[in-house]
Amino acid sequence: MFKSCWCLCPSAGLSAAKLLKASGLDPVVLEARDRVGGRTFTVQNKEAKWVDLGGAYIGPTQNRILRLAKEYGIKTYKVNEQENLVHYVNIPRDAPWRAPHAEEWDKMTMQELFEKLCWTRTARRFATLFVNLIVTAEPHEVSALWLLWYVKQCGGIMRICSTTNGGQERKFVGGSNQVSQCMARELGDRVKLQSPVYRIDQTGDMVVVETVDKQTYKAKYVIVATPPALNLKMHFNPELPPLRNQLINRVPMGSVIKCMVYYRENFWRKKGYCGSMVIEEEGAPIGFTLDDTKPDGTVPCIMGLVQSFKQFSVIVYILLRRICEIYSKVLGTDEALHPVHYEEKNWCEEEYSGGCYTAYFPPGILTQFGRVLREPVGKLYFAGTETATEWSGYMEGAVQAGERAAREVMCAMGKLQPNQIWQPEPENDEIRALPFVTTFWERNLPSVDGFLKFLGVSTFLSAAAAAGLVAYKKGIIPRS
Amino acid sequence: MFKSCWCLCPSAGLSAAKLLKASGLDPVVLEARDRVGGRTFTVQNKEAKWVDLGGAYIGPTQNRILRLAKEYGIKTYKVNEQENLVHYVNIPRDAPWRAPHAEEWDKMTMQELFEKLCWTRTARRFATLFVNLIVTAEPHEVSALWLLWYVKQCGGIMRICSTTNGGQERKFVGGSNQVSQCMARELGDRVKLQSPVYRIDQTGDMVVVETVDKQTYKAKYVIVATPPALNLKMHFNPELPPLRNQLINRVPMGSVIKCMVYYRENFWRKKGYCGSMVIEEEGAPIGFTLDDTKPDGTVPCIMGLVQSFKQFSVIVYILLRRICEIYSKVLGTDEALHPVHYEEKNWCEEEYSGGCYTAYFPPGILTQFGRVLREPVGKLYFAGTETATEWSGYMEGAVQAGERAAREVMCAMGKLQPNQIWQPEPENDEIRALPFVTTFWERNLPSVDGFLKFLGVSTFLSAAAAAGLVAYKKGIIPRS
Repeated sequence: MFKSCWCLCPSAGLSAAKLLKASGLDPVVLEARDRVGGRTFTVQNKEAKWVDLGGAYIGPTQNRILRLAKEYGIKTYKVNEQENLVHYVNIPRDAPWRAPHAEEWDKMTMQELFEKLCWTRTARRFATLFVNLIVTAEPHEVSALWLLWYVKQCGGIMRICSTTNGGQERKFVGGSNQVSQCMARELGDRVKLQSPVYRIDQTGDMVVVETVDKQTYKAKYVIVATPPALNLKMHFNPELPPLRNQLINRVPMGSVIKCMVYYRENFWRKKGYCGSMVIEEEGAPIGFTLDDTKPDGTVPCIMGLVQSFKQFSVIVYILLRRICEIYSKVLGTDEALHPVHYEEKNWCEEEYSGGCYTAYFPPGILTQFGRVLREPVGKLYFAGTETATEWSGYMEGAVQAGERAAREVMCAMGKLQPNQIWQPEPENDEIRALPFVTTFWERNLPSVDGFLKFLGVSTFLSAAAAAGLVAYKKGIIPRS
Repeated sequence: MFKSCWCLCPSAGLSAAKLLKASGLDPVVLEARDRVGGRTFTVQNKEAKWVDLGGAYIGPTQNRILRLAKEYGIKTYKVNEQENLVHYVNIPRDAPWRAPHAEEWDKMTMQELFEKLCWTRTARRFATLFVNLIVTAEPHEVSALWLLWYVKQCGGIMRICSTTNGGQERKFVGGSNQVSQCMARELGDRVKLQSPVYRIDQTGDMVVVETVDKQTYKAKYVIVATPPALNLKMHFNPELPPLRNQLINRVPMGSVIKCMVYYRENFWRKKGYCGSMVIEEEGAPIGFTLDDTKPDGTVPCIMGLVQSFKQFSVIVYILLRRICEIYSKVLGTDEALHPVHYEEKNWCEEEYSGGCYTAYFPPGILTQFGRVLREPVGKLYFAGTETATEWSGYMEGAVQAGERAAREVMCAMGKLQPNQIWQPEPENDEIRALPFVTTFWERNLPSVDGFLKFLGVSTFLSAAAAAGLVAYKKGIIPRS
């Protein structure tokens, strides 16, 4: 009897199980929550039809998640336009701790790097907004090396930021959670919901896994598909090795509340705004917005991200009022004060996420502890989007990690060769990556220095302009 | 029937239980390990007689732990000499996030502050060693605000660093773990060993606590006396509030292995060295040492601290050889190459500590999340040395925290007034705090700037000289 069971499952756990089952094995998926999908979360109701309150966007080069969606017949739709690229190429995607200057950059916060390299206040401010947006943390909280790696492994600054041709090009019609739901349906009663794992014992021949709902599972191998910090929810026998024990205490999750405000009419488009806003104002609850109206124009909606801890404990109706007030101010109309519906998801209070979107590395951690991120411990293998080497932090990374871990288990069972564990993914034949249009200067900026100046000044501002984005800051940036 | 139970217990849990029992209540202590004492750990055997492989030192102003020791008849003995003081006074001990410039300093790592304020490389190097020693983390890993607070709440830089009149003045004859053992004996079968808590449910009238050994306890109130990060070992129903959920993911424990090397003879004293060394050499496994010979001169021993992650996975006998080699080099004698016994404790691999000595705050965390450190959640109260406002990180802080949490529970039960929760401790009548001898300049250094220059140059070097400490670095600092 072979059982391969694993614990907590965003897409990583399910895609590992899917691959193992397809290979003739008999996996069990233990999910802590009462639903599948982890950090993707789609709500359906009359007012919103469907809405993604967690991970939502996909784009070119995310070929694994696109492959799964295609298999299940889940359609995508396009969100937006075209901009320019710079590639920062000196950091190894699979081992950033081996980059030249790795230790030096890891000892620095991104804030320090910005202070050294961005010469204008405007550039520094945009750089800060960029960090807030892509990793839901502050520049002074994160290691510079880690942030540079993060951008690199997503394919560069333009790929990560862009709508058209980038990470936000598309959304799934009907919501992103469908991918996980389809995989779960395929796996049937192998998926156990409300089964948080609290104990993993690998002192015997079989690994014994115990859940809070008092079930015991036995398996030859276990794939732990949680964010690294959530390994702490489990009591291990024997204890984890020292480096992993320290790692999982050092990689907190980002902080974000996703807020969807619904209106009767899409008044912003009528005023010539696309719904994207970058808001800088002391005390403003929201920093970024995107239009979340359905592809057919129905259910007008603005999606906003709250990242300030000062808002985390605010009562819902007060937060909603503050959000509507700032939208009204930025868009210059009272119409924003009259929402017809509201949905929010505070990921900071989720015990089995710890936060969203992904784990971040404070200074000094990546070079010291990063190398054990996906190093197996006995019969335990590690998945979760944080262990991916492409689009880590995204749904795509979760699929890469889950399938890689499944192949590690198959390799341990003698069913695969070690050189088959890491497999490249063919490009999706419908959603292809286009080269970005680059200028001479952009192509020839070779350094971190150039990278940041470009990021701070030209990219962000030109991207903003191209997308018709409203950057709001009293007296500094014009409203449109 | 009233039961007040709590989870994992270093001195904080036991001293809370002791106070509750003395007040006529009926507490239960749930301890994850197979022993009491948490981050104190005393080993007894033929070779070492007794040895503290965890927290060991106590000194003046640590009046609570001294009170407990006195009650149980545990004697102390003196370790060493006299130096000078500077007090940095602008950070509120109970609310560092309200200090002037709190946000600015919290966004900075201690490394950044050093780079701004220490003008010479020697000063910066000593400042780094100081941080390594007192909080077992690197200057680039910790928030400057947090480190300044940490020093402040211990009574200043000289109090924290000093042997005589400072935090390392004394040790307990027979080992520090005795205090916990005596409290545990007094509490009898109220203390349950090997009972790691994995679940706390406070949805009903009574709080329900479940342990890995499959016991269920019910109580009106629970005191959680673990380091904040170890709250993650428990599954909470309802979930913790967002700020606490984020806090416990953001405060990792320091990294240290305590290594005791025993020799037939105390050869270093014969050569005129007291056994204290500060070792700076690329690749050296040990940064600091202290003499750990017994007070009667028997069992010659050097205690060394390993803080480099590069040594954390090294096999014991190889680590011991490396340690002896560097001692031999620094002390200039082959005698160091021939130990007769060795004891070590790698705190980084301890699942129920996460590391040692204490939790540290990376940049940005104290001002955002610090305020919920000891904020009760329903019927849960929080102890653990990390929640103390005096000698947090030390045994003294654990006792302050445990007794304060016990009084919070008594207050919730209507047995105490809110203004009785925080109680000052009378000074121990045998071990008194002396004023430090200060020069005019030291007394009149008002700023962080002055604090650091003083720390970097005068304090550390003069302290080193006064203590007969061996600071070793090729060509820079003489050997004695």
